[in-house]
Amino acid sequence: MEPSRARAVAFDVNETMFSLGALKGAFADVGLDVAQVPLWFARLLRDAFALTALGEYRPFAEIAAETLRDLDPGRVENAAVETVLATMRRLDPHPDVEPALRRLSDGGIPAITLTNGSVETTSALLERAGLAAHIAHVVSVDAVRRLKPAPEPYRHAAAVLGVPAGDLALVAAHPWDCAGARHAGLRAGWVRRGDARWPRVFPPPDATAATLPELVDALLAG
Amino acid sequence: MEPSRARAVAFDVNETMFSLGALKGAFADVGLDVAQVPLWFARLLRDAFALTALGEYRPFAEIAAETLRDLDPGRVENAAVETVLATMRRLDPHPDVEPALRRLSDGGIPAITLTNGSVETTSALLERAGLAAHIAHVVSVDAVRRLKPAPEPYRHAAAVLGVPAGDLALVAAHPWDCAGARHAGLRAGWVRRGDARWPRVFPPPDATAATLPELVDALLAG
Repeated sequence: MEPSRARAVAFDVNETMFSLGALKGAFADVGLDVAQVPLWFARLLRDAFALTALGEYRPFAEIAAETLRDLDPGRVENAAVETVLATMRRLDPHPDVEPALRRLSDGGIPAITLTNGSVETTSALLERAGLAAHIAHVVSVDAVRRLKPAPEPYRHAAAVLGVPAGDLALVAAHPWDCAGARHAGLRAGWVRRGDARWPRVFPPPDATAATLPELVDALLAG
Repeated sequence: MEPSRARAVAFDVNETMFSLGALKGAFADVGLDVAQVPLWFARLLRDAFALTALGEYRPFAEIAAETLRDLDPGRVENAAVETVLATMRRLDPHPDVEPALRRLSDGGIPAITLTNGSVETTSALLERAGLAAHIAHVVSVDAVRRLKPAPEPYRHAAAVLGVPAGDLALVAAHPWDCAGARHAGLRAGWVRRGDARWPRVFPPPDATAATLPELVDALLAG
């Protein structure tokens, strides 16, 4: 635990703020196996992290498209890829996002987003959900050409806000993201969605809660 | 393409030399959903690469155990984890492995293994399959405490053999592994198992073939 309280909060986007639930409908619409949504997302992250570990960078949407095509080699049409990627811009927010952002707004604490996705996709999600007014900056990994959980995106987010890394807390549903934030010097809060458990291979987060408002409270309490 | 021919060949182990097919039986034996084998392996690699991208290291078997437990949080018994991990030491070799190794032996070209798994697991697999005599070194990432596809394990393998990185070719069924090898200065050959396609986000390999003997021939032809 750090002695100081968080002075700004960065939200991961996919699964943390927005449910991937709509992807099931998109998979069904284009004739992909709905049961493969989790496999696709795991492989998307696998390849994104592999590129990051070996020292290269590609935009997240490109990796998403390629891992989709790998699900059924030679038989996934470009139109199917377009449909699934378009759905990533039309996900529904989890119901606990708005109250958490309102709590930060009321307390004068800046909230930003920090995702491996693009600024364009994130802005579209926030506008559609009516949450854009709560977000001070939509920060993109594209600016540093390194994907999370490498340290650069987290430090870039602190630089955009003009605060020391230790004053910024990342909030995420993914243990790997919390671990990356902590390794880069940020604080980290894990929102435990569903029955998820914390994998012991990652150093633990500073705070854990079942909902985002509780998590924000814990991070601001210091 | 490099001008020179490979003077030594490093084989990846899981899926490249040994089929993961036996894991289905292990999952069934312990009451896990057999359809989740690919999801588990994708998440195992996802978390392994996340740790590598953020700059940390854990033994592969530990990450394997934790991602197994995540498949059904709170309900995967330690005995089930033990059974699955034990199966990773009892996988069957693909039928094209022995002819490829024999071709290298006959040509006086050293063959080694380079895996994210442990020396103990790899040695057990090679002994059980009767392939150990063909392998000059069982190289472990544990020695450098970095997992593939970070550059350190590939360069370590060349150092163990006492050859320049560019004289060593990695052979793997995984595009991320081939990309890591090339990024570290090695040559890379991709064995295209089943109907796999090469994801365009990774720089292409030096050689591609449907079987290991053909791939070895292509890499030795330079």
